[in-house]
Amino acid sequence: MKIIHIGILGYGVVGTGVANLLKQKKQLLESRTGAVLNLKTIADIDITTDRGIDLGTTNLVSDANLIINDPSIDIIVETIGGETIARKFILDSLENKKHVVTANKALLAGFGNDLVKAARKNMVDLAFEASCGGCMPIIKALRESLVANDIKSMAAILNGTCNYILTKISRDGSDFEDALKAAQALGYAEAEPSLDIDGFDTAHKLAILNSLAHGMEINLKDIHVEGIRNITAVDIEFARSFGYIIKLLAIGKTHEDHVEARVHPTMISSSNPLSHVDGSMNAIAIDADATGQTMLYGHGAGMMPTASAVLSDIVDIARNIISGAKTRVPILGYPEDNIKPIPILPMEELYTKYFLRFEAQDHPGVLAKISGILGDNNISIKSVHQKGRKSNGKVPVVMITHIAREAWVQKALKQISKTDSVVGDPILIRIEETDQE
Amino acid sequence: MKIIHIGILGYGVVGTGVANLLKQKKQLLESRTGAVLNLKTIADIDITTDRGIDLGTTNLVSDANLIINDPSIDIIVETIGGETIARKFILDSLENKKHVVTANKALLAGFGNDLVKAARKNMVDLAFEASCGGCMPIIKALRESLVANDIKSMAAILNGTCNYILTKISRDGSDFEDALKAAQALGYAEAEPSLDIDGFDTAHKLAILNSLAHGMEINLKDIHVEGIRNITAVDIEFARSFGYIIKLLAIGKTHEDHVEARVHPTMISSSNPLSHVDGSMNAIAIDADATGQTMLYGHGAGMMPTASAVLSDIVDIARNIISGAKTRVPILGYPEDNIKPIPILPMEELYTKYFLRFEAQDHPGVLAKISGILGDNNISIKSVHQKGRKSNGKVPVVMITHIAREAWVQKALKQISKTDSVVGDPILIRIEETDQE
Repeated sequence: MKIIHIGILGYGVVGTGVANLLKQKKQLLESRTGAVLNLKTIADIDITTDRGIDLGTTNLVSDANLIINDPSIDIIVETIGGETIARKFILDSLENKKHVVTANKALLAGFGNDLVKAARKNMVDLAFEASCGGCMPIIKALRESLVANDIKSMAAILNGTCNYILTKISRDGSDFEDALKAAQALGYAEAEPSLDIDGFDTAHKLAILNSLAHGMEINLKDIHVEGIRNITAVDIEFARSFGYIIKLLAIGKTHEDHVEARVHPTMISSSNPLSHVDGSMNAIAIDADATGQTMLYGHGAGMMPTASAVLSDIVDIARNIISGAKTRVPILGYPEDNIKPIPILPMEELYTKYFLRFEAQDHPGVLAKISGILGDNNISIKSVHQKGRKSNGKVPVVMITHIAREAWVQKALKQISKTDSVVGDPILIRIEETDQE
Repeated sequence: MKIIHIGILGYGVVGTGVANLLKQKKQLLESRTGAVLNLKTIADIDITTDRGIDLGTTNLVSDANLIINDPSIDIIVETIGGETIARKFILDSLENKKHVVTANKALLAGFGNDLVKAARKNMVDLAFEASCGGCMPIIKALRESLVANDIKSMAAILNGTCNYILTKISRDGSDFEDALKAAQALGYAEAEPSLDIDGFDTAHKLAILNSLAHGMEINLKDIHVEGIRNITAVDIEFARSFGYIIKLLAIGKTHEDHVEARVHPTMISSSNPLSHVDGSMNAIAIDADATGQTMLYGHGAGMMPTASAVLSDIVDIARNIISGAKTRVPILGYPEDNIKPIPILPMEELYTKYFLRFEAQDHPGVLAKISGILGDNNISIKSVHQKGRKSNGKVPVVMITHIAREAWVQKALKQISKTDSVVGDPILIRIEETDQE
């Protein structure tokens, strides 16, 4: 039986999960591939902590170059994370003609185009199923399943921390800080949670998915990113009264000569399948021209779901090696020569519907003032709620707009803020409706 | 640019969809594969009806052998359906070393093991992504993505006709016949609807999925199949009062030395993601040991969703041809030598929870009689509802049992039917709960 040798760089949570699956599922993997997937070496700066894995004949070393420069190793799994040392190790591995599997979405979002070029120059694979959506096979779906489709839009819940927090606020009426603490206590959120809750992790994943969906260069910097720090139980409750749920969505849409790519809290109808995706679960809804609406749902993170996705990449590469296939599937789904930069729509030019909430003075004429400014800026109002909840002489005024241009809305909000009719900054949450609504 | 020649056998709905995508997405497919996917010939007994496709240089012929025996053709798509002529054409094509793509689940469920053997003998691919779940990439997920997982269970809504009818009864309180007529008017159900509503189509798909999930020979004949003809608005309403939704599910579960494989109306909790899958949509939930719960959702049928799945198979095979890979992924996910028959649990030996409804005489002692017989058969009752709806001196008595053995339940129901306490046959609907419930 052919032996395929594997090295793992980084023996942290994901690295341990991958080692665990390679050991525990040895027989299953042999039965499926007809080859031995031998975990030859693991490299980590910490070679003493017991990870609870019986390594058997696997070497644990502190020098990554013992893997990168080992001529017998076919596949290198990078699970170090970060964008410096991981980047160097991956580039060195690719130069040494090793196939590379990584879950490092930050690195791919920031430097993926270079990594893809390096992989192709060396005629090896660069695989990253675990980078987006954990165990959901979204990379494979875009690169291999939806190949005859034009992707019209994607909307995705890609960060379990944010989804857990929003679900908790929604269910218990918790405030954001308490929900965050609960997420941290459960291990869903880091002590330094910004990467998750400010939307950056979601943006990294959207940058990758947009590239695969459109055959475009990976572009992180032009994605608009807002997190969930300002979402309150009050807005969630108002949303519910309009038939909406609030989720942190990654949204990608296709237009003639540009795409949309944005991450922000979003109101979606309770008839949208994404609205039922609760707790730390993730989901990706894709509307494509041949398939129509389709959705993947599952754990977007965690040791074993992530390791499962890494293993699917390893088996893919193993099957390529065994069958003699080289560079069988283009890394970004399109041959590198066909990948082009496609501009991302500047946020000011977005047209969508908006939920707006103002803390208004409770006296006559305030509603007329606010709606007058909105009207002057071409924003027409679909419905208004102004009721109850008076505190200190203020009442919340809540509005749903018809489709309006982001620039107009931002300008109107600035003007309204300057009047003495409202207190504090208005709340703006964008509304996403599917074609059916 | 390399040219890959394709032939289509059968120019009906799916064949037309495939031809449409091959023509309409010519440029996209070239951009994705780096090859020309040339639709060389279509064969159908009807070569005169206009299908609205500009065939260009594609030949339309009435003799399938002009495709099967054309030495230039690489890939043959079978969209004829049925189990006789389609089977012969596929076997002939495989013998002629053609890769074959089919959506024919009835054929695969009945004769798939032979087709797989023929394909492997001739070192060609047999691909069938469109056979189960339409555009959802479930075949690829099982063969390629979940490769390092042991599948613990699958529960799936695989027939849009049934799901549409159950949704309609649930929403409108329609009776079954009216809901069926509505489905027929919308084109969701055939004039002769038995294949769908009696559960056979779902069973065909389960036979295929079970094989892929477990590396077992395809086994249709031992799958227990019940359809939805007896589902009424009354039971759907009772289900709702217990927090359940009724769906026609395909259920596959793994045990030490056997599997479960059954198709029947099933009550699931409204917290189960499958419970939100409404109308003609399909979904497949898989619980696997590394990934945990995951779900695919989408259109399970229809011209273009099915054609999209066929195209994903064509592109997979094209990528194999271009990269020089032969028999890269085992047809059933495991090398043929590793595929074994695994017994399916006889239905009498099933242990699950049950919803039971009796039309009982409205006089004292009836409940004691029914529950006495259940108790004598080792069936313990979790909850009982006996209320309202008296008609002609009868009241519905509704019970939810704890986990019980199917044989005991069937025996008890026969005994209860023989008493003068109840009228007509009792209604039995099995309840499926996930680990969390």
